[in-house]
Amino acid sequence: MLKINADRLWQSLMEMAKVGATAKGGVRRLALTSEDTAGRALFAAWCREAGLSLSVDRVGNLFARREGREAGAAVASGSHLDTQPEGGRFDGVYGVLAALEVVRTLNDADIVTRKPIEIVVWTNEEGARFTPAMLGSAAFTGVMPLETALGTQDADGVTLSDALATSGYQGERAVPGDRFDAYFEAHIEQGPVLEEAGVPVGVVTGGQAIRWLDVRVTGRAAHAGTTPMQYRKDALFGAADMASELEAIAVDFFPQGLATIGEWHIHNASRNTIAGELMFTVDLRNPSDAAIEEMEAAVRTRFEATAARRGLTIDITQHWVSPSTPFDPACIDAVQEAVSELGYVNQRIVSGAGHDAIHLAKHCPTAMIFIPCVDGLSHNEAEDALPEDVARGADVLLHAMLARAGRA
Amino acid sequence: MLKINADRLWQSLMEMAKVGATAKGGVRRLALTSEDTAGRALFAAWCREAGLSLSVDRVGNLFARREGREAGAAVASGSHLDTQPEGGRFDGVYGVLAALEVVRTLNDADIVTRKPIEIVVWTNEEGARFTPAMLGSAAFTGVMPLETALGTQDADGVTLSDALATSGYQGERAVPGDRFDAYFEAHIEQGPVLEEAGVPVGVVTGGQAIRWLDVRVTGRAAHAGTTPMQYRKDALFGAADMASELEAIAVDFFPQGLATIGEWHIHNASRNTIAGELMFTVDLRNPSDAAIEEMEAAVRTRFEATAARRGLTIDITQHWVSPSTPFDPACIDAVQEAVSELGYVNQRIVSGAGHDAIHLAKHCPTAMIFIPCVDGLSHNEAEDALPEDVARGADVLLHAMLARAGRA
Repeated sequence: MLKINADRLWQSLMEMAKVGATAKGGVRRLALTSEDTAGRALFAAWCREAGLSLSVDRVGNLFARREGREAGAAVASGSHLDTQPEGGRFDGVYGVLAALEVVRTLNDADIVTRKPIEIVVWTNEEGARFTPAMLGSAAFTGVMPLETALGTQDADGVTLSDALATSGYQGERAVPGDRFDAYFEAHIEQGPVLEEAGVPVGVVTGGQAIRWLDVRVTGRAAHAGTTPMQYRKDALFGAADMASELEAIAVDFFPQGLATIGEWHIHNASRNTIAGELMFTVDLRNPSDAAIEEMEAAVRTRFEATAARRGLTIDITQHWVSPSTPFDPACIDAVQEAVSELGYVNQRIVSGAGHDAIHLAKHCPTAMIFIPCVDGLSHNEAEDALPEDVARGADVLLHAMLARAGRA
Repeated sequence: MLKINADRLWQSLMEMAKVGATAKGGVRRLALTSEDTAGRALFAAWCREAGLSLSVDRVGNLFARREGREAGAAVASGSHLDTQPEGGRFDGVYGVLAALEVVRTLNDADIVTRKPIEIVVWTNEEGARFTPAMLGSAAFTGVMPLETALGTQDADGVTLSDALATSGYQGERAVPGDRFDAYFEAHIEQGPVLEEAGVPVGVVTGGQAIRWLDVRVTGRAAHAGTTPMQYRKDALFGAADMASELEAIAVDFFPQGLATIGEWHIHNASRNTIAGELMFTVDLRNPSDAAIEEMEAAVRTRFEATAARRGLTIDITQHWVSPSTPFDPACIDAVQEAVSELGYVNQRIVSGAGHDAIHLAKHCPTAMIFIPCVDGLSHNEAEDALPEDVARGADVLLHAMLARAGRA
């Protein structure tokens, strides 16, 4: 069975990691900076060597096309080359270079596909320079209006439009873009599930639903030394109870439900003052929209009961709601069949993080392939992946794309 | 039975409240500012009218003396005239003017005491301008060296020494000061106990022990979306458990034990990141040194067990330890006999807040008298007290001091 060239893919990953390399072994290529542009230039050179034609759209998304026997919508794959300020060598770049390796492998084997193939480098996926993250794919898929995307400013007040002009990536291709035949994205998992399970390939079935809540608990600030326990309305002890209840809710929805308190602020905090007002955030995740609705309802019911029992007032507001994103059954099947035929141990997995593929799923049939990353670590200079996993994921991508594009 | 002139005391309190009065009905007289100096000048004028001789020590503590039949150590009483930036009309000033009212009442009744009587205005009790609080009484009692006290700077870099020179309160009297025969201080409770109990007079038996702990909990920061619950080392959920355990410890030591978490900081907090490191403070109080030792031991045992169970590391350090301050039994008895003879409903109470009397207790026989304040509110422009409670507390002070000083 056809396989990609594992050494070539690894060498390309290591070559790309030199562009914006940090002293600690990571990478810094903020979107559309000179480092990111240098990374794109290296990728473009490799694409030209591989006989691909390049084009750029109005938000700087870069496309490299391999024609098929037939005209029409391409089977696309890609990810991003920009990184976090202290990023790693695999997040994003793996998906781009795995797609390039697919093309190189098809070239080596003289395979002509029925449908065209396109590799995509999405602009500003990380959100580390321009906000929000996944900006390029959001504009491409029409999730974000073009003018909004172009007017987005970085911390120095530079607009995306200006950054595109400076970097030479102010392209002509229309935004929103034409529909792909399908979109596949290979990515490191950015979590510990595959590694802990000893599974080298994850067949990603979609993105989970997310709900961000803001919880404000109000009691009564008072002197820690003069106020007997029975007269207190301590917002902190109330919030601590709620945190324990939140963890219990996650257990009720185990293993799919996730719950996190990431921020926690006491108003006018002082060591010897009973907390009168406190705000904390809740991050809920679940692959099922129905289940996350139940999780939020449980949060509200339990938190409000605790507040009432303690004489506290509580205000719970939705900060952000994002429904689940199921991937396309046919694309998931294509990935599943590829990995099964290759004989790689695999499992179904839901994407916990955001990816360009989450936007693409609203635009065309989409699926993803995950490979493990060491210690589940990402957004970190120590981010790492094993060469054999890197190769297996690209093999799966190759066969999924080939099945979808068809041999001519 | 002899009583003070309730109307005169109330009028004096209201007159003093005009000095530095705020729009919201509070008072702003930061230590040794022009407002504080004006308040002292008004008090000094009243003292001269009452035939008292004035002196000032090297940290600006102001003494007004009424001679007795005998020479020697005085029976002293007082408190402070400085306030919080948004302070009230009673905190401190009540103790000073209640002592003045005692002298005025003795004058009216032509009573000569055996021992002299002194009224004291302590410098910078609030700690709102110079740090620490209770600075004047700390220097007077030798708790703080004179040079340290004089070199203390306010937020603008003005030293206490400079502020004394500017305000005209750079006195000659030695610091540390001579031992008083006894010291009594009347004060609003600054908590809800007396008001909730419907008791107008509290016989204060001492100051409670205080322990401030810093607790650092370390888990592992990770992505809220990609990390299954079972792989998490969530410092926040661990700390929430500890908060609940702390509250349970306070219940175990009810009603004497108090426990408060006033500060709580997540390191690099982010809404969608599991807390990797978190610091919170613990404020423990108990009138018994043995009991507070047990409370701290319970905190350490339970917190460490929770950390171990959750795979977290924990570091608990003592930030500050202050032993309990029992007042003098004879002075407490003098207060108790006075209130009993006056027939006022009363109860024993421990001081939850710091007072100049806490320092004085290390220097000479000391006791305090508390009166209720409305809603337990203090350090607030809305601070209030009932005229009848104000009068009763001063009656008790009169008879306690008279018993101690003796009629000539």
